[in-house]
Amino acid sequence: MNTTGHNGIEHSNTNINKHSKMSTNHVSPIVNFQQSCEQKVVPVFPWFAIDIGGTLVKLVYFEPLDLTPDEIRTEGEILMNIRHYLTSNRAYGQDGFRDDDLELTDIELGGRRGNLHFIRFPTARMSIFLDLCIMKNLHTLTFQVFATGGGAYKFENDAVNKLKLQWCKCDELGTLIKGLSYLSKLNPNECFYYEEPQNDANLNKHTFNFDIKNPFLLVNIGSGVSILHVESETNYRRISGTSIGGGTFLGLSCLLTGCSSYDEAIKLATEGDSTKVDKLVKDIYGGDYERFGLPGHIVASSFGHMNLPEKREQATKSDLARATLVTVLNNIGSISMMCAQTENVDRILFSGSFLRINDLSMRILAYAMDYWSRGKVKAIFLEHEGYFSAVGCLREFIMDKDDLINPSQH
Amino acid sequence: MNTTGHNGIEHSNTNINKHSKMSTNHVSPIVNFQQSCEQKVVPVFPWFAIDIGGTLVKLVYFEPLDLTPDEIRTEGEILMNIRHYLTSNRAYGQDGFRDDDLELTDIELGGRRGNLHFIRFPTARMSIFLDLCIMKNLHTLTFQVFATGGGAYKFENDAVNKLKLQWCKCDELGTLIKGLSYLSKLNPNECFYYEEPQNDANLNKHTFNFDIKNPFLLVNIGSGVSILHVESETNYRRISGTSIGGGTFLGLSCLLTGCSSYDEAIKLATEGDSTKVDKLVKDIYGGDYERFGLPGHIVASSFGHMNLPEKREQATKSDLARATLVTVLNNIGSISMMCAQTENVDRILFSGSFLRINDLSMRILAYAMDYWSRGKVKAIFLEHEGYFSAVGCLREFIMDKDDLINPSQH
Repeated sequence: MNTTGHNGIEHSNTNINKHSKMSTNHVSPIVNFQQSCEQKVVPVFPWFAIDIGGTLVKLVYFEPLDLTPDEIRTEGEILMNIRHYLTSNRAYGQDGFRDDDLELTDIELGGRRGNLHFIRFPTARMSIFLDLCIMKNLHTLTFQVFATGGGAYKFENDAVNKLKLQWCKCDELGTLIKGLSYLSKLNPNECFYYEEPQNDANLNKHTFNFDIKNPFLLVNIGSGVSILHVESETNYRRISGTSIGGGTFLGLSCLLTGCSSYDEAIKLATEGDSTKVDKLVKDIYGGDYERFGLPGHIVASSFGHMNLPEKREQATKSDLARATLVTVLNNIGSISMMCAQTENVDRILFSGSFLRINDLSMRILAYAMDYWSRGKVKAIFLEHEGYFSAVGCLREFIMDKDDLINPSQH
Repeated sequence: MNTTGHNGIEHSNTNINKHSKMSTNHVSPIVNFQQSCEQKVVPVFPWFAIDIGGTLVKLVYFEPLDLTPDEIRTEGEILMNIRHYLTSNRAYGQDGFRDDDLELTDIELGGRRGNLHFIRFPTARMSIFLDLCIMKNLHTLTFQVFATGGGAYKFENDAVNKLKLQWCKCDELGTLIKGLSYLSKLNPNECFYYEEPQNDANLNKHTFNFDIKNPFLLVNIGSGVSILHVESETNYRRISGTSIGGGTFLGLSCLLTGCSSYDEAIKLATEGDSTKVDKLVKDIYGGDYERFGLPGHIVASSFGHMNLPEKREQATKSDLARATLVTVLNNIGSISMMCAQTENVDRILFSGSFLRINDLSMRILAYAMDYWSRGKVKAIFLEHEGYFSAVGCLREFIMDKDDLINPSQH
């Protein structure tokens, strides 16, 4: 989960043509790579980029299918091993996973054909990952690592000291939009919406023909939540955010239910009933609050029943997980809707790892948007959820290469 | 706590001159009082009104100091007993309290002099309270009860059946503003603000000279939260709300710490450290997120550390209560600030029982407002926190009386 939330409104205007920040760690004994980075050293394979979020690290790896004999020769045995390692397994150790259902096969990227792989592991394992890179000799094969997310800053010293290579930091929101722009054009199924989100059937899921040129809101739900107003790939503002995000759902679920993973928490939530935990309008009014148009089934107070011992005894772990999920989502939905009204947009795209394996959450959000906007604002979801910043970061890396391979195109 | 929150934006325009809704329960065997209510029957003592919220019932009682011999004769022994009971004790049974520090002595109300008393008990005890009224023969002394809050609707049947009297329902937000208007004029210390809220000293608390005529936001934090844009006593709109309110703080605190009361939860929160529980921007970035002006000490993900077993072990009950408080307040502050910007107002008044004995919460809110608005928006707090709707409801009752006593004034 790669985006930080906060509890206030951002005033900074960021309608600027963004460039990735490139820097080196001066504590490192190695030579200063700043110069070579700016000179755009030819990026050889492997092509990968990394988004180090507050909870999850997202790694994208491009597996070339059109290697020349020359490349095969220079790639060498170690690279082939890495390639084999990254693409043949779905699980890496205890906590790493390749999302093989998200893999994009035989695509074009930076003038080359190949498969794009999506891999994730907990940020808490970042140090172990760096050690693994050394063990597998990955660091000897590349000059540069393109990294985004907060961890690109936090782990910079560690990475440069251990791997002795150039660490190029990209802004996570810039890469997010760059990744979205690329994948929404490449993948015809990337964007989708729910016709009748209150119904359980997958039949109601439809492909959405997304065009980045019309202004929209992009709500990125990672550990925290960032809300962006996007006018184009390079013209966007962070207009709001909230710290009540995916990290809140997971953290509270662990505390309240004793679960230990996101998958477990979502499974519990799917089986639970939040009305055992939340106080609804009808619990206070006995029915609707008619004067202000609040129907009885709306939540009046999240966790509002839980001050009473008898209600606490009746609430199951599943009910608590479901209430946590509903609380987080309703709040994100409400804040997003306020932003949509202020900015006068009718499309809200939701991205971020929080929505992974989370059809329930998407339907809750879609229903809330539909209900409160009276059908005017559409909630749009994305197949590659939390991987956009990593993909955008890979594009930053590729652009440098494109400049050299096809200079006429730029 | 007398206001319901919800998770969307209200579109209903309520710029109307509000009147209390009066109704009777037709299931009741007693005569229809609708007519007598509209004809404004002279209200004899006792004067009281009741606000039945999602968590707390707030009762205000006017103790007359200028009783005539005639009134003393007609009042009788039972009324004197009630008066003695209501004013001499601070605690009523296990859960009822008179907030004697809030008592307003020797004031004028409806042309009479007296003391205004503020009493509260849990809404879960409402049925027991009705039984107590019968036991004390209170119901034989009055024709009408003026009630507000969601419980005015929910408990209507029960009250009318048990007490056999007229039940006049007033809208809780209308009475809230009516009560605020009255008490802010009557009590010179009613409104206050903090000069440097980040500092602990009470020296920083200052009286605020409030004028209801300039538009302001009124954020009422009960079990849930309602946000009103107020232009005058009769011209206001409910513009937003959130279900993450006082009920959420109390409910989650009970679940996470095993505490059983609001006072206990606040005490725990006062002693705790939320940074052991929340993931800050610096926990993700290693420092500030400079590009979007987010300093490292800002919360990125509420409860964001709690997915890790070692962090859970380190967090105390106090830390969890503090994090719950900070999460709820930051969210309310953030949504209020968005509304203030949209509505272009520079004053936000915070009311509601959630702020009772809660200097910590007021300072957290004040600091958040000051920080995010860069000193432009002032957070204003109120001495009688959660009692405004009850006072406004009492004014509805008195107005009927005023019409009869001083018709020339209307």
